[in-house]
Amino acid sequence: MTQPADARRYHALPSPFPMKRGGVLHGAHVAYETWGELNAARDNAVLVLTGLSPSAHMASSAQDPTPGWWEAMVGPGKAIDTARWFVICVNSLGSDKGSTCPASIDPATGAAYRLSFPELALEDVANAAHAAVSGLGITRLACLIGCSMGGMSALAYMLLHPGSVRAHISVDTAPQAQPFAIAIRSLQREAIRLDPQWNEGRYDIHAEAGGQYPDIGMSIARKLGVITYRSAMEWNGRFARIRLDPEQRDENPFGREFQVESYLEGHAQRFVRTFDPNSYLYLSRASDWFDIAEYGHGSVLEGLRRIQIERAMVIGVSTDILFPLQQQEQIAEGLQAAGADVEFVALDSPQGHDAFLVDIDNYSRAIGGFLARLPAG
Amino acid sequence: MTQPADARRYHALPSPFPMKRGGVLHGAHVAYETWGELNAARDNAVLVLTGLSPSAHMASSAQDPTPGWWEAMVGPGKAIDTARWFVICVNSLGSDKGSTCPASIDPATGAAYRLSFPELALEDVANAAHAAVSGLGITRLACLIGCSMGGMSALAYMLLHPGSVRAHISVDTAPQAQPFAIAIRSLQREAIRLDPQWNEGRYDIHAEAGGQYPDIGMSIARKLGVITYRSAMEWNGRFARIRLDPEQRDENPFGREFQVESYLEGHAQRFVRTFDPNSYLYLSRASDWFDIAEYGHGSVLEGLRRIQIERAMVIGVSTDILFPLQQQEQIAEGLQAAGADVEFVALDSPQGHDAFLVDIDNYSRAIGGFLARLPAG
Repeated sequence: MTQPADARRYHALPSPFPMKRGGVLHGAHVAYETWGELNAARDNAVLVLTGLSPSAHMASSAQDPTPGWWEAMVGPGKAIDTARWFVICVNSLGSDKGSTCPASIDPATGAAYRLSFPELALEDVANAAHAAVSGLGITRLACLIGCSMGGMSALAYMLLHPGSVRAHISVDTAPQAQPFAIAIRSLQREAIRLDPQWNEGRYDIHAEAGGQYPDIGMSIARKLGVITYRSAMEWNGRFARIRLDPEQRDENPFGREFQVESYLEGHAQRFVRTFDPNSYLYLSRASDWFDIAEYGHGSVLEGLRRIQIERAMVIGVSTDILFPLQQQEQIAEGLQAAGADVEFVALDSPQGHDAFLVDIDNYSRAIGGFLARLPAG
Repeated sequence: MTQPADARRYHALPSPFPMKRGGVLHGAHVAYETWGELNAARDNAVLVLTGLSPSAHMASSAQDPTPGWWEAMVGPGKAIDTARWFVICVNSLGSDKGSTCPASIDPATGAAYRLSFPELALEDVANAAHAAVSGLGITRLACLIGCSMGGMSALAYMLLHPGSVRAHISVDTAPQAQPFAIAIRSLQREAIRLDPQWNEGRYDIHAEAGGQYPDIGMSIARKLGVITYRSAMEWNGRFARIRLDPEQRDENPFGREFQVESYLEGHAQRFVRTFDPNSYLYLSRASDWFDIAEYGHGSVLEGLRRIQIERAMVIGVSTDILFPLQQQEQIAEGLQAAGADVEFVALDSPQGHDAFLVDIDNYSRAIGGFLARLPAG
């Protein structure tokens, strides 16, 4: 939807690229960006896998000076120190931020895939990212970092590609989707799917403002996302019951009156036309499907025990209602049982699931400390 | 929407009936039901004020043997013992379960009020209930019980009608709406308002199945309600990641696959055409507006300190994300500071906000014990 920035690179995936749930992609690619320099031994690479909506533009660079979504965390001298590490961020397969996705042209038909895109799993996201890393000549990552949905993709990456990762940082994620998170995502998808403008996926993909587009469904989905990404505690301090100034209120009966309502509306407006609705549906469902227990005869811990890495840091936050702290405890326990040296960091950040994007002090200290302690390859 | 059952009675409100936010109602009434017998001293009355959606049919009776919404709690020998107490449940003003509401005929026009219904506050709900109780010849309630939204209405009742209540049971409620709850309700209203079939409130009010009606918006609103009324913990045990049988799945891409999705759909289908959408919007907004601090110069505790009762029990549950336990602690603290003898009951029920409807054992023990200990008038 946006113009590719100069820093964006593309990796062509093997064609055909087989998908976990049975389909294949032809001529597919993933977008990525890098920061820092790969050393001669090729052993200083750090890969970051993202949540559902961010692009590969995690931080600014000379080629693209616009701030990235984790700008405060990535750069020279920052927690993910690009003076030491060669840092890669791969846009998820299925995301419209440069990777092949439901809005891409299907070479077999010359038209956008839309709902003919094959079923997407986070294992496919992981395999595509692994292909991009391999394409850079890297056989073993010094560290794999996964945030939110990207944390689930990271577990798949390590499990499906043994020996490809030395250390892992798991951020605000889960080893499987639980029913509360499934319910939230199901309702987000329903808001989009029931919007008549979605039209079974046949809206105007490149509509910038006008055109047939499921604005209402996307707006409701995004607002519900924001509600579950933050926490009631944060909002008590931040918004309380503060009203909008009368001139900021809208004229509708039941229109926006409280600051928190205006905050949600702002988030929705910034999102609605910047993320392809079909891609959103695919990635959302992929998150529901993810379950490390599939690899452990139905046991989360047994699935995690199949992951062979040297050390890990698992971070979670007590106010996260979407990926509750107990799920991070499971990851820590499972990786430890598999033989890794695991540090578990339970934070009390008030910001909920999004704390990794907001509480930079605490997340920087944890992630920066872990990376600084990693021995050279 | 449903046929009045035989047990339902009506109380005509004074006409004009002045509303807190400026409007008036002419020829309005509220529906109520009663159980047990009022004694000669008229001092054994217990009033229950309800959450947003229930009717006055709280329990079965000889006149209406269908089970009520708190059937397990109310009856001879039950926690709210109708052998001792004369129990009244008043349907909220503004609810379409028999009381005057936006779907009612405006006598001035002969047409339904719809959005010309005056702005509704929970203080109006409280005043209407107080009028109904007075109409039964009762000047002082032995106990006022309020659940969820009805707990806020109960605080208004006691504050606006000093001396009208001896004892109070506060169940899973709050002294003011906090921003998380406002955000959830705002999004529920938006789902209805943005449904083109809502049509600015001019849908077919009495549509039973066909007709123009905001089914999609009401369905999304209800599912979001159910998600926030329950708890992630309960669903982990109840649904985990259990799939529907293939024949139960729908054919849509992204259709229902997990049991939790089917559970939400069942709740939505039972609700959508049984609650008037405009009435839902009015009661939902009234809940956002409620703030006991308005009566305490901006302080919740000072507002609560204006409530003069003899004793109270305040019950909350640790898994409630809509009315968190800290809000019940505030109520207990405020009523205690006002001089009441207060018992605070913090439950660990896994069912979240809805625990009072589900965890009957614990709620029965608390409520039944408190009522049994109440001295005779």
